[in-house]
Amino acid sequence: MNKLLILSKHHEIYTRLLAEAQPPDLTWLAAEGLPQALDLGRDCELFFGEPPLLAQALPYLPNLRWAQATWAGVERLLAPGLRRDYLLTNVRGVYGPQMSEFVFAHLLHHEQRISLRRQAQAEHRWDNTPPGRLAGKTLGLLGVGSIGAHLAATAHHFGMTVRGYTRASAACPDVDAYYHRAGLLDFAAGLDYLVVVLPNTAHTHRLLDAAVLAALPPQALLVNVGRGAVLDHAALEAALRQGRLAGAVLDVLETEPLPPDSSLWETPNLLITAHTSALNHPPDIAALFLRNYAHWQQGQPLTGVVDFELGY
Amino acid sequence: MNKLLILSKHHEIYTRLLAEAQPPDLTWLAAEGLPQALDLGRDCELFFGEPPLLAQALPYLPNLRWAQATWAGVERLLAPGLRRDYLLTNVRGVYGPQMSEFVFAHLLHHEQRISLRRQAQAEHRWDNTPPGRLAGKTLGLLGVGSIGAHLAATAHHFGMTVRGYTRASAACPDVDAYYHRAGLLDFAAGLDYLVVVLPNTAHTHRLLDAAVLAALPPQALLVNVGRGAVLDHAALEAALRQGRLAGAVLDVLETEPLPPDSSLWETPNLLITAHTSALNHPPDIAALFLRNYAHWQQGQPLTGVVDFELGY
Repeated sequence: MNKLLILSKHHEIYTRLLAEAQPPDLTWLAAEGLPQALDLGRDCELFFGEPPLLAQALPYLPNLRWAQATWAGVERLLAPGLRRDYLLTNVRGVYGPQMSEFVFAHLLHHEQRISLRRQAQAEHRWDNTPPGRLAGKTLGLLGVGSIGAHLAATAHHFGMTVRGYTRASAACPDVDAYYHRAGLLDFAAGLDYLVVVLPNTAHTHRLLDAAVLAALPPQALLVNVGRGAVLDHAALEAALRQGRLAGAVLDVLETEPLPPDSSLWETPNLLITAHTSALNHPPDIAALFLRNYAHWQQGQPLTGVVDFELGY
Repeated sequence: MNKLLILSKHHEIYTRLLAEAQPPDLTWLAAEGLPQALDLGRDCELFFGEPPLLAQALPYLPNLRWAQATWAGVERLLAPGLRRDYLLTNVRGVYGPQMSEFVFAHLLHHEQRISLRRQAQAEHRWDNTPPGRLAGKTLGLLGVGSIGAHLAATAHHFGMTVRGYTRASAACPDVDAYYHRAGLLDFAAGLDYLVVVLPNTAHTHRLLDAAVLAALPPQALLVNVGRGAVLDHAALEAALRQGRLAGAVLDVLETEPLPPDSSLWETPNLLITAHTSALNHPPDIAALFLRNYAHWQQGQPLTGVVDFELGY
């Protein structure tokens, strides 16, 4: 019998979903946070829950062999000094469609000048300024994992050209041109849209710095749905205040919630969307755990195995 | 030698594009409007230009055999008493991609609550209210021609279910369920989005009346990119003021520009976009004319032949 510890703010939903699925040879204990979990975890070889809760619980899980995170972002488990003697899997393959809805909402909003139409309407003014088009424009994806691949497919549906910047991979059929490592400034030059889908790792920290922002054309719009730490926010704010970029949509920030006195709130052409681009839908995450558990039982490879060195 | 009369506000662009293409056995005369054209048209068998200009010029074109309209909407040529003794072709097949950008900009804007995020930002407030999703929702297309077919494909890309209401046709593979004639209220019931792509004909006039609006669920958003005359605007305004619909985006209106004193400007949850959903790109229209001219020379069927009885 395998023993599982569930630590999650959604632990009641996950408990119900697991009970309905009746996975074989599995018993579980569930709690919302660490205090209740200290006594529960000692015998557990399996973990399912939020990465920050796992980071706190690690010292109390001596028998841990496999942990399924309920998020994509696992940077809290990469901190120096934390154990890495267990198999860690994160959530992959479920965020693409909703990220695509988020990203293309903002790209199309920008092209259709919806804010200007609202302003004209408030003045009872018939503003038939032509909208722009996504077709024919160039989208750059900083990071091409399963989310980036879905964004690339949507971009192709709308007739865009797609560039991808990755560490090494070049496997997505909807990316028209790949850039790696030292090619970052070439990648940025000529983009109409730059969408950041990178996780926060030692390699991606501040990758999007003043030099990259300066390489973007002035008509470019930046969308960050990856992690705040990838971006130099002071450099972005300066670029926007000086009109060197058309705009930015920041869904992720280094400190969340963004403090009320942050100057980002008032930066022109900057929209803050409060980490709403990818929401966890517990049934999807539970289904992912159950598929991986079946593989675990059969000794098959799991989906979403994190490389502690790469950080994703 | 075929003689062509070009009457268009873009006549200089069209003249240049035709000169570059060098269509065989074709000479042309071009003017911006009727006064200059009165003397030009007598010998012309072919016409290329805007429908309202053709409607005025018809009495002065005794030898007219084929007219290529530069627009999709040809209702001005359907007026009682106007000649119908010539072949009329309209623009088809070029608006789908840009209409799709327009329509999905507004659908995604609605789901992502972008206006509320902007309001929260103005208050320095971290508003992480979850966005809605297009995936799983139902889109109804009132009219499924080439534009509707493209909208249906985009809807499928985003995981929506698609209903189509047509006179008789049921040929689009991306429409999941078809409705005809008396099925209009069944079609409307349960829609999350209703997109009107119908032309203005005797059969479509005020088709979208108070009864159809009442059949829509209260969460439904209406988008009209067809023709204003299809919709009962007083009934729509009443539904919006009483909160019986989530919202409406009107790109077309019965009187354009909308008069400054219209009550529609101040109707809650109504956005007016001033006929910007489909713009004519002269190179596309000229290419369409040239393809049809080649067919005309060879005695082949033309693209976009209008049935004067159906009105499209």
